Amino acid sequence: MINTLVEKISNLNAPVVVGLDPMLSYVPEHIKKAAFEQYGETLEGAAEAVWQFNKGIVDAVCDLIPAVKPQIAMYEQFGIPGLSAFEKTCAYCKEKGLVVIGDVKRGDIGSTSAAYAVGHIGKVQVGSNTYSGFSEDFVTVNPYLGTDGVKPFVDVCKENNKGIFVLVKTSNPSSGEFQDQLVDGVPLYELVAKKVVEWGEECMGNTYSNVGCVVGATYPEMGRVLRKMMPKTYILVPGYGAQGGKAEDLVHYFNADGLGAIVNSSRGIIAAYKQDKYEKFGAENYADASRQAVVDMIQDITGAIAKR
Amino acid sequence: MINTLVEKISNLNAPVVVGLDPMLSYVPEHIKKAAFEQYGETLEGAAEAVWQFNKGIVDAVCDLIPAVKPQIAMYEQFGIPGLSAFEKTCAYCKEKGLVVIGDVKRGDIGSTSAAYAVGHIGKVQVGSNTYSGFSEDFVTVNPYLGTDGVKPFVDVCKENNKGIFVLVKTSNPSSGEFQDQLVDGVPLYELVAKKVVEWGEECMGNTYSNVGCVVGATYPEMGRVLRKMMPKTYILVPGYGAQGGKAEDLVHYFNADGLGAIVNSSRGIIAAYKQDKYEKFGAENYADASRQAVVDMIQDITGAIAKR
Repeated sequence: MINTLVEKISNLNAPVVVGLDPMLSYVPEHIKKAAFEQYGETLEGAAEAVWQFNKGIVDAVCDLIPAVKPQIAMYEQFGIPGLSAFEKTCAYCKEKGLVVIGDVKRGDIGSTSAAYAVGHIGKVQVGSNTYSGFSEDFVTVNPYLGTDGVKPFVDVCKENNKGIFVLVKTSNPSSGEFQDQLVDGVPLYELVAKKVVEWGEECMGNTYSNVGCVVGATYPEMGRVLRKMMPKTYILVPGYGAQGGKAEDLVHYFNADGLGAIVNSSRGIIAAYKQDKYEKFGAENYADASRQAVVDMIQDITGAIAKR
Repeated sequence: MINTLVEKISNLNAPVVVGLDPMLSYVPEHIKKAAFEQYGETLEGAAEAVWQFNKGIVDAVCDLIPAVKPQIAMYEQFGIPGLSAFEKTCAYCKEKGLVVIGDVKRGDIGSTSAAYAVGHIGKVQVGSNTYSGFSEDFVTVNPYLGTDGVKPFVDVCKENNKGIFVLVKTSNPSSGEFQDQLVDGVPLYELVAKKVVEWGEECMGNTYSNVGCVVGATYPEMGRVLRKMMPKTYILVPGYGAQGGKAEDLVHYFNADGLGAIVNSSRGIIAAYKQDKYEKFGAENYADASRQAVVDMIQDITGAIAKR
């Protein structure tokens, strides 16, 4: 699956992924109104609003980008109807030719991680049939439980040509509380990074591994070090834009081949119409605002890479 | 919510929780057959089988135990129908007066953790209404992202009288890979434990905090140390029975008041009929086997506590 992602990134010259993390407050009034008229102010109504909102954005940007990253929490908060909207969004994005990175941050002991893995990126056996419960191409994985919590995901990746991104250094302000703690002079996130490389060696694509990692855009110096430590590991980079990460800081997340990282923006793209810069589009044309924001983001990042 | 849990544990003299982690292979043939006849060998069929299996066990054991711990991965693997069975199981257990600990191990950056928290133990706003997407009483939380990933759960606990159990030292074989790493001579899991105490101080029940922790039964020496470090923190203890934890090792997870820990068994209870010891019940009477296994587990643990 990493080969497919790398190919799409190269063909589009767009190392970016759009985070489909819809808060209801991002959804324009006309979409909420239509959804609530149909389903009432219910979980079903919220799920419909989110789905229609997503569909508009995906239709507007799908020719520009290689991938989307729906954040499952934003759907899970609306219970079963919300998770149905998550599944519908993933399926629609795949129809549109996009790689789907499920930002699920799952991770548990062995047999339980295996259940998450088959549920999201594999196939579950029911009698003599197999099914995909959900159908992402990649998922994000939390490493706190160690190798036997991550390996079941790697095994499912191998069987199904899928991939994962393991949390190494997250973008949030307090990520350092545990991740930066020094173990014999080496920060914990680097120990995790070494394990990610090890897990990834048995699941290689052509140039990069199907086992990638997450390193926040908000910690560029750490990104620079990690890039060197793990040359064959694709880095999923959250935290660009709204969270404060800047393109010039991100160039060191890329290898000399211009590949090796994919930068996520969520709010900055999907709620672009709420920014002064894109206000002129108006809420009715929120998807056009998102498209312009994607164009600008690609230019910002590829421009910075070209200049380095 | 911790007050409710403690009261139930005291009244029943049963510091145990039954893990509802149904693998399809645990479900007796007659239940699978009925479910597949109705829904086919589909995700819906699997979900129905799991739900009927759970219902039988819950009916058989609900008067003996304070709480259940459904592991969401085992439902999530069956997609939306599976998650509907999870929700139905949680609701049914609450009807039966049980405290429901959702073993979801969620954790993310702030706004995303907030979405998980409202979805599982809080209420989500849709227009002028509020809803519970899911409806556990407690959830398990992964601490790798630090304070700002956990605090949104604590805030939702305070607003809704709910609780969480934060992973400190997990029961799996490779949990030590990161959790045991020494930071200035102190293992990482102890640093996490200190933070758990801090988070818990602002969310106290009468004697114990609504912010509990998870410490595996498979590491009794660490359990003994952690018990002393965090006297007001309830410890959820997985790993008893099938994973190897023994009652005599677990006595140190309890405070002098005989409280402070709740021990989980999943496979050992729900698939009891598959053990030699309970074989005589037969698959048809799997729930009676589970009841006997619960009786034996309570006796085993309370006996060990009484003897210490």
